[in-house]
Amino acid sequence: MKQIDLMRELSRKTDTKVLLMVLDGLGGLPVKEFGGKTELEHAKTPNMDRLASEGALGLHDPIAPGVTPGSGPAHFGLFGYDPIEWNMGRGVLETLGIGFELKPGDVAIRTNFCTLDDKGLITDRRAGRIPTPKCSELCEFLDKNIKMEGVKTFIRAVRDYRGAVVLRGKGLAGNVADTDPQVTGKKPLPAKALDAKSRKTARLADEIVAQAHKLLKGKAPANGFLLRGFSEYRKYPSFEEIYNLNAACIAVYPMYKGVSRLVGMTVIPARETFDDEIKTLEKHWKDHDFFFMHYKPTDARGEDGNAQGKVEMIEKFDQKLDRVRKLKPDVLIITGDHSTPTQLKSHSWHPVPFLMCGPAIRADSGKTFGETACAAGSLGRIPATSLMPLALAHAGKLLKFGA
Amino acid sequence: MKQIDLMRELSRKTDTKVLLMVLDGLGGLPVKEFGGKTELEHAKTPNMDRLASEGALGLHDPIAPGVTPGSGPAHFGLFGYDPIEWNMGRGVLETLGIGFELKPGDVAIRTNFCTLDDKGLITDRRAGRIPTPKCSELCEFLDKNIKMEGVKTFIRAVRDYRGAVVLRGKGLAGNVADTDPQVTGKKPLPAKALDAKSRKTARLADEIVAQAHKLLKGKAPANGFLLRGFSEYRKYPSFEEIYNLNAACIAVYPMYKGVSRLVGMTVIPARETFDDEIKTLEKHWKDHDFFFMHYKPTDARGEDGNAQGKVEMIEKFDQKLDRVRKLKPDVLIITGDHSTPTQLKSHSWHPVPFLMCGPAIRADSGKTFGETACAAGSLGRIPATSLMPLALAHAGKLLKFGA
Repeated sequence: MKQIDLMRELSRKTDTKVLLMVLDGLGGLPVKEFGGKTELEHAKTPNMDRLASEGALGLHDPIAPGVTPGSGPAHFGLFGYDPIEWNMGRGVLETLGIGFELKPGDVAIRTNFCTLDDKGLITDRRAGRIPTPKCSELCEFLDKNIKMEGVKTFIRAVRDYRGAVVLRGKGLAGNVADTDPQVTGKKPLPAKALDAKSRKTARLADEIVAQAHKLLKGKAPANGFLLRGFSEYRKYPSFEEIYNLNAACIAVYPMYKGVSRLVGMTVIPARETFDDEIKTLEKHWKDHDFFFMHYKPTDARGEDGNAQGKVEMIEKFDQKLDRVRKLKPDVLIITGDHSTPTQLKSHSWHPVPFLMCGPAIRADSGKTFGETACAAGSLGRIPATSLMPLALAHAGKLLKFGA
Repeated sequence: MKQIDLMRELSRKTDTKVLLMVLDGLGGLPVKEFGGKTELEHAKTPNMDRLASEGALGLHDPIAPGVTPGSGPAHFGLFGYDPIEWNMGRGVLETLGIGFELKPGDVAIRTNFCTLDDKGLITDRRAGRIPTPKCSELCEFLDKNIKMEGVKTFIRAVRDYRGAVVLRGKGLAGNVADTDPQVTGKKPLPAKALDAKSRKTARLADEIVAQAHKLLKGKAPANGFLLRGFSEYRKYPSFEEIYNLNAACIAVYPMYKGVSRLVGMTVIPARETFDDEIKTLEKHWKDHDFFFMHYKPTDARGEDGNAQGKVEMIEKFDQKLDRVRKLKPDVLIITGDHSTPTQLKSHSWHPVPFLMCGPAIRADSGKTFGETACAAGSLGRIPATSLMPLALAHAGKLLKFGA
């Protein structure tokens, strides 16, 4: 039996509350300038250290040892869905993230506006980073004027130079390669189907790009249209179905709202800052029994290779935790979705530190929250998918298996 | 390949001997009155501590992190059978436990005698705890006088007010809810089929109860008949088939004899006390190459919430280990089937401490047997199903995999 089916069988509704706080890209590697400590170990985190003393520590593998996850699979793992079975492309996740209602069978695609020269070669893959209002104006214009036969198309703005395209019709599939060549000085690539089922999608994609390029003529810097992250929407079993949880997401970035919508969470509008997120949590604490809260800045500093910046972002997170303590969650988990070591400037496969605390948790000897302490934690090194069952167990939400 | 199929391929017969000693519900949580130590850590256990120094320690998850096991699944895990795939209900386990020979397709049910008032309401769910001889007399009487069409029925006494009912016939399945309402002041529930295949079983169960109530009229306090733990018997691959082991069980309670019979162990009759169990082990040491020995009192004290009592039962177990040492098992494992923290008064999901020792085992730095030492043990935190392969390997009973 798969874990989600087992959870369906064992989970029950209770009044207890679980809070999962995810610092994106939290895990790191030892930094020379910090005397061999990681950013998390070097940062001053009195609140997390106190929680570590009261709770138990461990490391989780987002997918499997050695496998570096994208943001989507990393979150599905944390949510207890086998991330290999339930992998979903970025097109769908971002489109759900902006609140678009997808239907099963829809193909969703991320799009970038870009700049093309007279020969059709890309000179700027981000169209001079046009502002969001400009992007909205162009997406509305294309949405109105692109005419396709036998398929409905929707074009929506996401943020800055980025948008989403949705194809709705029969016989579509999402296995199509990106048309973004990832470098300037080249033409956009034709859409290439990676399997027979996806040929119609690729053909339609080429037609959309051709029409878009005609319509955008003279609109430089946003006169080109790149497609990536093709993916086909399917419905996921929800947190309510699997866990008997009335779950909510508090996140700033569309991507993370998308993964949450896909598993049936209510996405509570929060504004831009972590302070906004905390206020939103406080305000809605009574309305849900599970909260997923996403904190982006740690990953951004990791990708920039900015160790000092990552330290500061961790400290900034820690400073608000007093307010989280006051809410008295029955189970609080603080972790990352994956590691983003500043030395690598990218996601990595390294296991991710986590702490779990609450009244029913057996405290271990860990006194600080960091990679080294977590490697010695009593919760061991476990797959990310084990975090949800552990959280539910400690919150008294799981019945006994078998007699 | 599934683990049991891999074991089938790799296991070989040797002269070495493995002893698996299970203290039921062994794992615990820190107890305030014991200065934050668990019962196992607080108990004086010179013998187990010595074995811990000589051997290696670890923690096992009976089913999966966060999942609380029933006694059946917990033992199947220890025996190396995927406990979710090989789950089996209590009716079958108890019926096998009293030595009844089930056939594939039989449905076995646990039964309680209870007391009904004039209106048919339950006034005592245990019929004044009638003694075993009275139970035997009533079961024989019902077995002789209940007449069913198209199905054979067997009614047998187990112990005190408890018995077993077996249905043998075509088209039976075991997915039927208990008729025991779990409270007094209510009528017994009608048998409710939980799937279409089990409708015939439910109908027959209602008929049996109706006949039993007629036959038991005037036999108060045992004038009512409750059914629970409906389950369908299927044959399990045996220890001999999978592991090439001639295995024996030494246990007092029918339930544990039942799980052992299901995997083809010889159940050696032992009487009531642990001393009897040890004597039985000594007497039969030459006859088998694998022994499973079950010790119940630790779980009973856990369920009662009696921390001091649990300490005493652990110490009582420890005192006999000198005699076990003298037998010189090639591999000795001491563990629990699950945790039963006295604070929770029930089974729990917490991982279970284990120690493994013998000449081929690489000792780790653990010097005492307890939850904290085991969390730092060199055998790590592993699924319960990994214990059998590890035991066989250290006993020289597993061939190399691949060339």
